[in-house]
Amino acid sequence: MRNKVILWGLGAMGSGMVSAIWKRPDLELVGVIDNDPKKAGQEVGKVLALSGIIDTINKEHLKEQYIKVSAEPGELLGKVQAGVLLLATGSFTRQVFPQIKQALEAGLNVITIAEEMAAPMVQEPELGGEMDRLAKKHGVSVIGTGINPGFVLDTLIIALTAPCMEIKKIRAARINDLSPFGPTVMATQGVGSTPEEFASGLKSGTIVGHVGFPESVHLIAEALGWKLDEIRQEREPIISKTSRQTPCVRVEPGMVAGCRHTAVGLIQGRTVIELEHPQQIHPEAEGIETGDYIWIEGTPNINLAIKPEIPGGTGTIAMAVNLIPHVLEARPGLLTMKDLPVPCLRYIRHET
Amino acid sequence: MRNKVILWGLGAMGSGMVSAIWKRPDLELVGVIDNDPKKAGQEVGKVLALSGIIDTINKEHLKEQYIKVSAEPGELLGKVQAGVLLLATGSFTRQVFPQIKQALEAGLNVITIAEEMAAPMVQEPELGGEMDRLAKKHGVSVIGTGINPGFVLDTLIIALTAPCMEIKKIRAARINDLSPFGPTVMATQGVGSTPEEFASGLKSGTIVGHVGFPESVHLIAEALGWKLDEIRQEREPIISKTSRQTPCVRVEPGMVAGCRHTAVGLIQGRTVIELEHPQQIHPEAEGIETGDYIWIEGTPNINLAIKPEIPGGTGTIAMAVNLIPHVLEARPGLLTMKDLPVPCLRYIRHET
Repeated sequence: MRNKVILWGLGAMGSGMVSAIWKRPDLELVGVIDNDPKKAGQEVGKVLALSGIIDTINKEHLKEQYIKVSAEPGELLGKVQAGVLLLATGSFTRQVFPQIKQALEAGLNVITIAEEMAAPMVQEPELGGEMDRLAKKHGVSVIGTGINPGFVLDTLIIALTAPCMEIKKIRAARINDLSPFGPTVMATQGVGSTPEEFASGLKSGTIVGHVGFPESVHLIAEALGWKLDEIRQEREPIISKTSRQTPCVRVEPGMVAGCRHTAVGLIQGRTVIELEHPQQIHPEAEGIETGDYIWIEGTPNINLAIKPEIPGGTGTIAMAVNLIPHVLEARPGLLTMKDLPVPCLRYIRHET
Repeated sequence: MRNKVILWGLGAMGSGMVSAIWKRPDLELVGVIDNDPKKAGQEVGKVLALSGIIDTINKEHLKEQYIKVSAEPGELLGKVQAGVLLLATGSFTRQVFPQIKQALEAGLNVITIAEEMAAPMVQEPELGGEMDRLAKKHGVSVIGTGINPGFVLDTLIIALTAPCMEIKKIRAARINDLSPFGPTVMATQGVGSTPEEFASGLKSGTIVGHVGFPESVHLIAEALGWKLDEIRQEREPIISKTSRQTPCVRVEPGMVAGCRHTAVGLIQGRTVIELEHPQQIHPEAEGIETGDYIWIEGTPNINLAIKPEIPGGTGTIAMAVNLIPHVLEARPGLLTMKDLPVPCLRYIRHET
């Protein structure tokens, strides 16, 4: 018996999740929701083929490519038998709450990559409480995950404290390359803007940097039993000294190549957690090596590097799909990554 | 209310656990068992002071230093109220089984650093089954942990598969320095022997290399749902090209500086897991950098390095003590690291 999955949100991440499901013998796609008029009514296999995402389909999944994308969640939720909803429609708890509510009420477990949902109690405690209540009432669970928040700058850090006797400070950085991304990401990170445009974009909220930092800081502190007095964030432009170019943006010296976003957690005025996520195009243009880095200052000191960084798109897709078995076995309610057993890719196909 | 802990085995690891407990506001040491005539009957604080292990004691722990080490487990187990037994008496399941049995029957959760107990079903399925049955009967749980097995070459690898869509092969190495260790470790790793002595030591079983490799390979495969056909181990001497010396052993060129122990897991003749743990004194003498390394070959590839390696002694002590809150909340039965939520150091004191 394969675990039946409905996907809501057939964008880049959602399409990747379908492709990931189709590689796994233990999962079955039973429905797809997306209200984009270009996708609704189409066969999911065709939508994926058009975007060049799909490579191979295992034979147990062949029929699933003919599933028609539905614009109407009510046609599927509670109607089509399924255990899990994968939700990839937005970044903010307030945005995805109505969708999650609908799924929980239909008795579905929910895994979402909405960044704020990694720890919805931070910014939306009321909605978080409501989701917890609903999930428990219907005997299912709801969790937010992804590469970050969800793994690199929280779950992996938490795990890395296990062999420590004492910790004074945690510092970590995720240094990545935005070059493969499209115009939306460039705009939200301010890539290609002037320093003045960057400043006004920050003010107006069009430039957001990384979504999910307070959530990661909170997750670490909560897992470790630290009572933070404050979480602070800072976003500053990465001013380029070189010419850098991608298919969708050109950056000249003096212009903004990306956004250096940092978040700190403080106890009595002392920084105990410090996370950094500078996102820019072509960091190698100025000799910057991409990677995920964690430094624990304590007993012992721990100095971890993953080079290059775990890719964000693949990582987020994998985290969501890989959590399905964990979530199906979890206790009901609103969960965070620290509540689940060590995450992993279970059920792997081996090429022979 | 602090969690009450009994410690069994006041060797280097057990003494470190006492010291770790004494740094934590959430734990209380309520008993110590050791039948070494030099320790039994003594106050635990004195035993630790003599071995130079203890530095500071928080005020809530002051009285605990006067606990007298008991040679008789029956005086404590089931008599002194406690939630957890930390067991640090041996490496092998068969060795610690009677002690675990006694503790489970007294209603104690058990955390042990016996290497084979990281996955006792591998080498002692009958004893494993018996422990599972006993633990469930008494509503408690039993788990084996440590830095390795328990973290670096299994739990951390398992966690690192979470952002992967597919995995072809897992390779990892723990490259450490044996120089700080005493004569027992040197003997079991063959340090200071001739190649001929190493060969005969392997045969006679006096040279063992790393204990816990089949357990780590099994834990990874089990977490990932891989059905291994075979686990193979190999131990070979690290022949020194240089003169190396520690306070307890001297190695001349041509002699054995340590043991290169490897373990592989195979599916249909193909190596899918490959773990390496070369242990020697002064690896820097031949330009070898110590560290913990994990390479996942898949989608994506992941390339992780922790430099230097997480120290074995501190790491093992911390893993055992840090699991206490996790184990107290766990379901009853025989558990492995993959069954628990992401391990971490909860309840950390901050220096102000």
